[in-house]
Amino acid sequence: MSTCKVLVPDEIGVKVLGESPHLETVRYQPGAPWPEAGLDAAVVVVGYENAPAVGARFVDLPNLRLVQTLNAGYEQWVPLLPDSVMLSNGRGAHGGSSAEWVVAALLAIFRDLREFGDRQDAGLWRPQVTETLIGKRVVILGAGDLATNLASRLAPFEAEVTMVGRRPRPGVHIIDDLDDLLPDADVVVAMLPADKSTYRLVDAQFLGKLRDGAVVVNAGRGGAVHTDALLAELNAGRLRAALDVTDPEPLPSGHPLWKAPGLLLTPHVAGSTEGAWERAWVVARTQIDIYAEGGTPPNVVT
Amino acid sequence: MSTCKVLVPDEIGVKVLGESPHLETVRYQPGAPWPEAGLDAAVVVVGYENAPAVGARFVDLPNLRLVQTLNAGYEQWVPLLPDSVMLSNGRGAHGGSSAEWVVAALLAIFRDLREFGDRQDAGLWRPQVTETLIGKRVVILGAGDLATNLASRLAPFEAEVTMVGRRPRPGVHIIDDLDDLLPDADVVVAMLPADKSTYRLVDAQFLGKLRDGAVVVNAGRGGAVHTDALLAELNAGRLRAALDVTDPEPLPSGHPLWKAPGLLLTPHVAGSTEGAWERAWVVARTQIDIYAEGGTPPNVVT
Repeated sequence: MSTCKVLVPDEIGVKVLGESPHLETVRYQPGAPWPEAGLDAAVVVVGYENAPAVGARFVDLPNLRLVQTLNAGYEQWVPLLPDSVMLSNGRGAHGGSSAEWVVAALLAIFRDLREFGDRQDAGLWRPQVTETLIGKRVVILGAGDLATNLASRLAPFEAEVTMVGRRPRPGVHIIDDLDDLLPDADVVVAMLPADKSTYRLVDAQFLGKLRDGAVVVNAGRGGAVHTDALLAELNAGRLRAALDVTDPEPLPSGHPLWKAPGLLLTPHVAGSTEGAWERAWVVARTQIDIYAEGGTPPNVVT
Repeated sequence: MSTCKVLVPDEIGVKVLGESPHLETVRYQPGAPWPEAGLDAAVVVVGYENAPAVGARFVDLPNLRLVQTLNAGYEQWVPLLPDSVMLSNGRGAHGGSSAEWVVAALLAIFRDLREFGDRQDAGLWRPQVTETLIGKRVVILGAGDLATNLASRLAPFEAEVTMVGRRPRPGVHIIDDLDDLLPDADVVVAMLPADKSTYRLVDAQFLGKLRDGAVVVNAGRGGAVHTDALLAELNAGRLRAALDVTDPEPLPSGHPLWKAPGLLLTPHVAGSTEGAWERAWVVARTQIDIYAEGGTPPNVVT
C-alpha cells in the first residue's frame, strides 16, 4: 500500500510518526516555504503559534487534505483553512496534565501547604487541622476531555463531582442548572473552551451565588472568568481561587490580582509538563493513521 | 435484646454511638475514676494520648471485653490490656486523609507549586515546564489501609504503583524485592506501622539504591526513615523528600532537617483533617456493633 506524506515541524514528530508504517514524514520550518520533497503532502502538522505565516502557505500544497494541531486549541487555524481541508486537534493529549494541576491546586489549598511551608521556613512545628477533599462538592464547568479527566481523578478522593456542559447528556447538567448547583458547591472549576457562549460566564452574579469560602478554579481560558468580579470577592475575603489562566494574559506586572488574598496563581502551566509534547505527537499519529487508512480522524473539528 | 454498655470519652462519641440501637453510652473523663454508671461496661473507647492513666483503670471494670481505639496506632495500649480483653483499632478512618496528604505533597513537588508561589509573591509571570505524576513509578512500603487508599488515589493519575508488604500476597511484593524495585522508582512512600521490623528500614543503604532526584515520602511513623541518612542525601542535592513524620518528633527547633533543601515538611497533620474524628467514631461504632451482636470486630489487633 502507498504511504501518506506528512509535513512535520520538529524531530519528535519525525520520530513518533515514523513509527507508523503508513506515514512518510518531511521536516518543514514553520513560516518558510515548504521543502520540495513535501509539496505533494496530504497532511501538515502544526503546533507553534505563528499560525498566520504557516497558514498562508497552505495554498501551495495542492494535495493537502488534513491539518493536524498538536494543541487542544484550534480557533486560530479555522480562518486559514482552504476549502475541503479538514482540521483535527490534539484533544486527549493535554487533559491529564491540566486535570492534575487542578487537583494539585485544590489539595494545596485545602491542606494548607503554603502555610505549612512558611512554618517550615521558620523552623516551627505547629500542627493544625486542615480541610480535605473528602466530601467536597465539586462542580466542573465543561464536560469534554479536560473535565472527564478531572472527574476521574477526583472520584477516589471521595469528592462529589457534577459536570456541567453546553449540551444536555446523560450524567451532564446544563448551564441552566447552575442556579441550583452553585449554592451547594464547595468548588467550581472552569474548564471551558474559548467562545462567545462562555465569555465571562463566571461573573459577579455567578460568584454571588457561591457560599462563603468556596473555591473558584480556572484551568480553561482566562476569559471565562470576569477578573474584576473575582477580584472583588477575593479582596473581600469571601471566596478563594486558583487560576492558571487570566484575563488579561500574561498578567501584567502590578496588576491587582498578584496581591489578591486567598489566590493560588500559576502562569498558564497546567498543560506544560514533561512528556506533554510526546503525548501530543502520539495523539497526532493516531489521527493521521486513521486518515491514511481512509477513515475520518475522531478529533476532526471542522 | 439487651444493649451493650460503652464508656466514651467525648460528646461526638455519645452522639455517633447513640445512633446504634445496640449501644448504651456513658461518658468518662480520661484518667479520672470511671463513673458509677459505667462500672459494668463491656467496652471502653480510647482516643487520647494518656494511655497509661486510662489503661491503669481497666482492672476496675470486671465486665470489660473490648478496648476500641479511635486511632490507627495502638501499640501503646497492648501492654495495658488485661487478660481476655480484645483490642480493636481505628483502621479505615484515617487512610483516606493520609493518602490525600501524600498525593498533595507529590503534586506540590512535581508541579513546582512552591516556586510558582514565590513568583506570584514577586508579581512575576514566568512559565516553565514541570514534572508530572503521569508515568511516575511509585513504590509504596506498606499494603494496609493507608497503602491501598493511596494506590486507589494514584491510579487515575497514570502513575505505576507497586505495593510492598511484610507478607507475600497477590499483587503485593515483599521487602526482599526492594533491591530490584528501588533503582527504577521515581517515588518511595513509607506508610509503615511502627514496629521493630520496619525501624530505620529506609537507611543509607536503601537510599543509595534510589536514582538521582527520586522522592522519599514518609507518612507512616518517623522511625521508618533514618533521619541522618536522609539528611545527607538532601544536603547533597541528590534526593528529594516529603515528611509528615520525623524522628525525633516533634522536630526540635534548630534541627538541621528544617533547612534541608528539596524537602517538604509538615507537622504530623496527614490524618488531621476536618471530619476525621467523626469518621473515626463511625468506624468505632461499626466495630462495637459487631461485637455487641456476638461477632469479632474486623479491626481486632490482639
